Order: sequence, then structure tokens, then C-alpha cells
Amino acid sequence: MKRTCVNIAALCLAAMARAADSPQPPPNAWRDVDPNNLVLMDTKYGETVVELAPEFAPDHVERLRALIRAHFYDGLSFYRVIDGFVAQGGIGEGTASTRDHPKEAADLAKKWPPLKAEFDRPIAKDLTFTPLGNADLFAPEVGHVNGFPVGRDAKEGREWLVHCPGTFAFARDNGDNTATTEFYIVIGEAPRRLDRQLTAFGRVIDGMQYLQKLERGDQKVDNGVIRDVSKRDAIIRMRLASDLPEKERPGYQVIRTESEAFAEEKTNRRNPAPEFYHRKPSGILDICATPVPVRRASQ
Amino acid sequence: MKRTCVNIAALCLAAMARAADSPQPPPNAWRDVDPNNLVLMDTKYGETVVELAPEFAPDHVERLRALIRAHFYDGLSFYRVIDGFVAQGGIGEGTASTRDHPKEAADLAKKWPPLKAEFDRPIAKDLTFTPLGNADLFAPEVGHVNGFPVGRDAKEGREWLVHCPGTFAFARDNGDNTATTEFYIVIGEAPRRLDRQLTAFGRVIDGMQYLQKLERGDQKVDNGVIRDVSKRDAIIRMRLASDLPEKERPGYQVIRTESEAFAEEKTNRRNPAPEFYHRKPSGILDICATPVPVRRASQ
Repeated sequence: MKRTCVNIAALCLAAMARAADSPQPPPNAWRDVDPNNLVLMDTKYGETVVELAPEFAPDHVERLRALIRAHFYDGLSFYRVIDGFVAQGGIGEGTASTRDHPKEAADLAKKWPPLKAEFDRPIAKDLTFTPLGNADLFAPEVGHVNGFPVGRDAKEGREWLVHCPGTFAFARDNGDNTATTEFYIVIGEAPRRLDRQLTAFGRVIDGMQYLQKLERGDQKVDNGVIRDVSKRDAIIRMRLASDLPEKERPGYQVIRTESEAFAEEKTNRRNPAPEFYHRKPSGILDICATPVPVRRASQ
Repeated sequence: MKRTCVNIAALCLAAMARAADSPQPPPNAWRDVDPNNLVLMDTKYGETVVELAPEFAPDHVERLRALIRAHFYDGLSFYRVIDGFVAQGGIGEGTASTRDHPKEAADLAKKWPPLKAEFDRPIAKDLTFTPLGNADLFAPEVGHVNGFPVGRDAKEGREWLVHCPGTFAFARDNGDNTATTEFYIVIGEAPRRLDRQLTAFGRVIDGMQYLQKLERGDQKVDNGVIRDVSKRDAIIRMRLASDLPEKERPGYQVIRTESEAFAEEKTNRRNPAPEFYHRKPSGILDICATPVPVRRASQ
């Protein structure tokens, strides 16, 4: 009996997420994700899928594609994973120091030289920015461009991807122009203090739950780096969908954030089911707590 | 070589979370958690620890203690788990409907009658509220009381626990006064729209990463309820630390959020390491992205 549906418990979860009951957006409200921007990342827990935003950081996207095609990440690991913050992957830190491997370090620096930062970009006239429609704590304005959460400063004429759960970015050394190969993905409450301080250029559109299973480090010890190398979860492989035979490519669609359907989603979220939410809702949306619908179209 | 420390990668993570390097708060900045408010929840992934806030919802805390002491949750499961949102546990929904188990339902309703909602409370004069010090998107004012993130409305004279990652609350039916036994824990971006709509009365202070490993449901199907009962992760047992022999109780300490040490933590977070953060930081904190330090004192 314990696990069957009983009177009291059955409805306790009824209306907490009514969006799920809403009608599906019409076919023309969906955009196909370009397979050249679709990254498939395998860990032992499952496949995580990232969409890249070349319009925001073309050099970083080109670098990532080149790294993926060189099988750079295959067999490397998530070596710094801090619960509620980020999962960082790549070559990582081990027990031996740089001094022990000067040749390898020099070879790497030659092959993958530091990138010029792409923290933000001039406001694009050819991209549709759809304002969220309310204030934000961190940016003068926020909204969406092609499904990505974006901050804007009209006075400065700049825009940038904001750090939300699922944001994909490159780590760097202290210098702005020092990112090379190491990436991180936000797995916790939006660390908006990182906006425009690092180059963000993608977001997880599927399989976020697999990253949540990654072995964690302890932030208080070695700043979250997992010292026991054997405990780090491997990046089994990373692939670009466009490098797969067409038949094997997963097809993803993201809602057009400039569409009427997405506007309705936001309106529904601002005014959640009145039969459950009895206190007048604030009508405020948090850019990072406003899901942008994604669906897997085919395989 | 791949997993050892090389020149380029070694520093890429240097300064992203400098708080870890800060000096430890002095002994008098810590508060011992009352073992009568300390809940230990075992799943196969590890032990998750929740601190309860009886000052905000005394009836719900009493109910939870009674349920735990009756071994109510032992062997039940997390049956509704939505990535980026909540993990809900208790009796759950199964394949059989209420109509099939009228007697069990009636027995349960008799034993654990619906609770009066405790969504918020009059502003307490005997509790120290420490303002966060900047605006919030959802509440007129936010800050901390005894380590808990709190929202306040001075005009209404009310205060409440806000929904952050780790917030522990009771689910309910459509009626305000319908919570009985089912609980949820926030595992994703703060769902602040739930503030004052449900009764929140605790927060996870350790082992959040184990909840992140829980098997997920699909929000688009059955609103996140995992239909295949065999896939639901069990709540192996739930205990109150005060019910354990004194020697076996884990001891936890939470920073005093009214202390100078916590004020310094916040100041450091507002002004992160300038050698890494080159753009002038906003100086803004998000109440739910402001960690309240916890340490395990003894076992």
C-alpha cells in the first residue's frame, strides 16, 4: 500500500508545476538546433547535450570545435566539481606540478594558445533580443536571444550570455586573455557574479541530471579539485553532432524565444494556477529560473 | 601526462572561488545546531542533513518529528524528482488510485490530519534578522535569521523562509491547509514563486550532492512523478539526531548570520578577488547564491 496512491498524498503535488499541463507550442514556434552547434558529452551517467552560441563568442566556439575534433577531451575528466556551483572539465590538476612537465606544457601552449576574451559583444542588430519584461538584480536588462539567457547594457551597447544553471563557459587564468582548453558548466544557483568576467558560449539543453551525478570535490579543500584522480568522473567522449553520420545525429529543437508561444509561457509562469497559488503572485520572473523549452525531435 | 598539472591548465581555476581561501571564522561566530532540529536522511547515495526552523513553522516541525519517530518515511521514496526544481518524497503516487484504497486513505487522514498553513509569521522581535543589504526581486527585504534565508515585508509585519536550493518544505493539495506528510526539497534554481505559497521550515546543511543523484522523473510526463515504482530512490531511513545516543550524534555548527564573520563573508563576496575579477563587480548578492557556512564539528 505504501507506494500506491492514497487519498491524502495523491494530490499534494497537484499544481506545483502547471506549466507541464499547458498546450504544446505550435510547430513554427520551434527552431532546429544547428548540428554544428550541438555538442554531445558522454559520461558514465549518460549523455549531456550542449548548444553553442557562436554569435556570442565565435573564437571560443571555433576552439571548442577544434578541440572536440582532435579528441582532446576524450578520456579526460571533470576534475573540479563544486556542488551548487560548477563542474569543471579538461586536463585538470593532478598531483605533479608544472615543473615536472615543462615539455608537455610548452607543447600544449603551442597547440592551443590562449584565446582573446569574448566576455561580451556589441549589441547585435541582426539578432532578435526578447526582453524578459522585468527588472534583474545584475544587469540593466535581461532577455533571450535564440533561446539563450542574455544580459544587456544599452548605454554601453554591449550584450552577453548570463550565468544560469547549465551555462557552458571556458575557465581562465588570472589574465582576461588566458582561456585555452578548460571548460566549466554551472550546476547550481546562478553565479551571476561571473557574468562578463569569463567567456560563456553555450548552455546545456538536455541531460543536466547526469552532470548532477558527477563526483564532487570539497570547495574548502583545494578549491574543489578532486585530489584522488581515480575518483574523478571521466569525460568518456565529446562529439559534435555534425561529425556524426546524418542518420545518427540527435535532432533537437528549442522554442523560438521571440515567438508568441514563448511569450505565453512567460505569462503563464507569471500567473501560475490560481487554484493552487492563492496569494497574488509577484509577477516577477528570474531570467535563470525561466525555462526555455527544448525537445528532442528525432534520432 | 593528461591528468597531471600542466602549465596552462593549472591556474585556469585559480580564483573562481576565493572565499575558500579566506580565514576561518572565529569559534564564537559558530552556533551549534540543536539535535532536536537536526534531521538525518539516508538514501543509497549518502546521508543528507536538514536543519529545521521551528521558530518559523512550529506545527510543521512537530509533525515532521512525529512522522520521523513513527518511522513513517523509512522505506518510502523520492517519487517526484524534477531536475532543476524539487525532489519530493513520502508516500507518493503509484499506479492504483485512491478509490482502490479507501480504508488506508481514511486511516492515514485520521492519523496525520491536514495541518494549518504556516506560510509566514509575524516579524519576530526575539529573533535577529540580519539584512542582506541589497534589493531582492521577490521580497521587499531579504536577510538571514539563524542561518536561514528569510524574506520580510515590514508593512505587512510578516516574515518567511524563502525558497533557495536546499529549502525543505511540505507539499500540499490545492487548499492552503492541506499539508500532511509529503515533503519536497529544492534541488535547482531558487523557485521563489513558491514563497509564502507553501510552508518552508528547514534547509539542507550537508549532503546536498546526494539529493542531486536521485533518479529523475520527466516534468512533461505525470508532472515529474516517476511512474516506474522500481526506479524511485528509497528513503532508507530518516532520523532525528536527538533520538540517537549522544555519542552517535553528528555535531553541526552554522555560522551566526548576525556575526561580524558573516558580514565579512558577504563583503568578500561582493568584492571578489580583484586579480581575477577585472570588471568592477556589481556588489549585489542574491540571497539564494549567498552560502551560509556550515561545518561538521564532531561525531
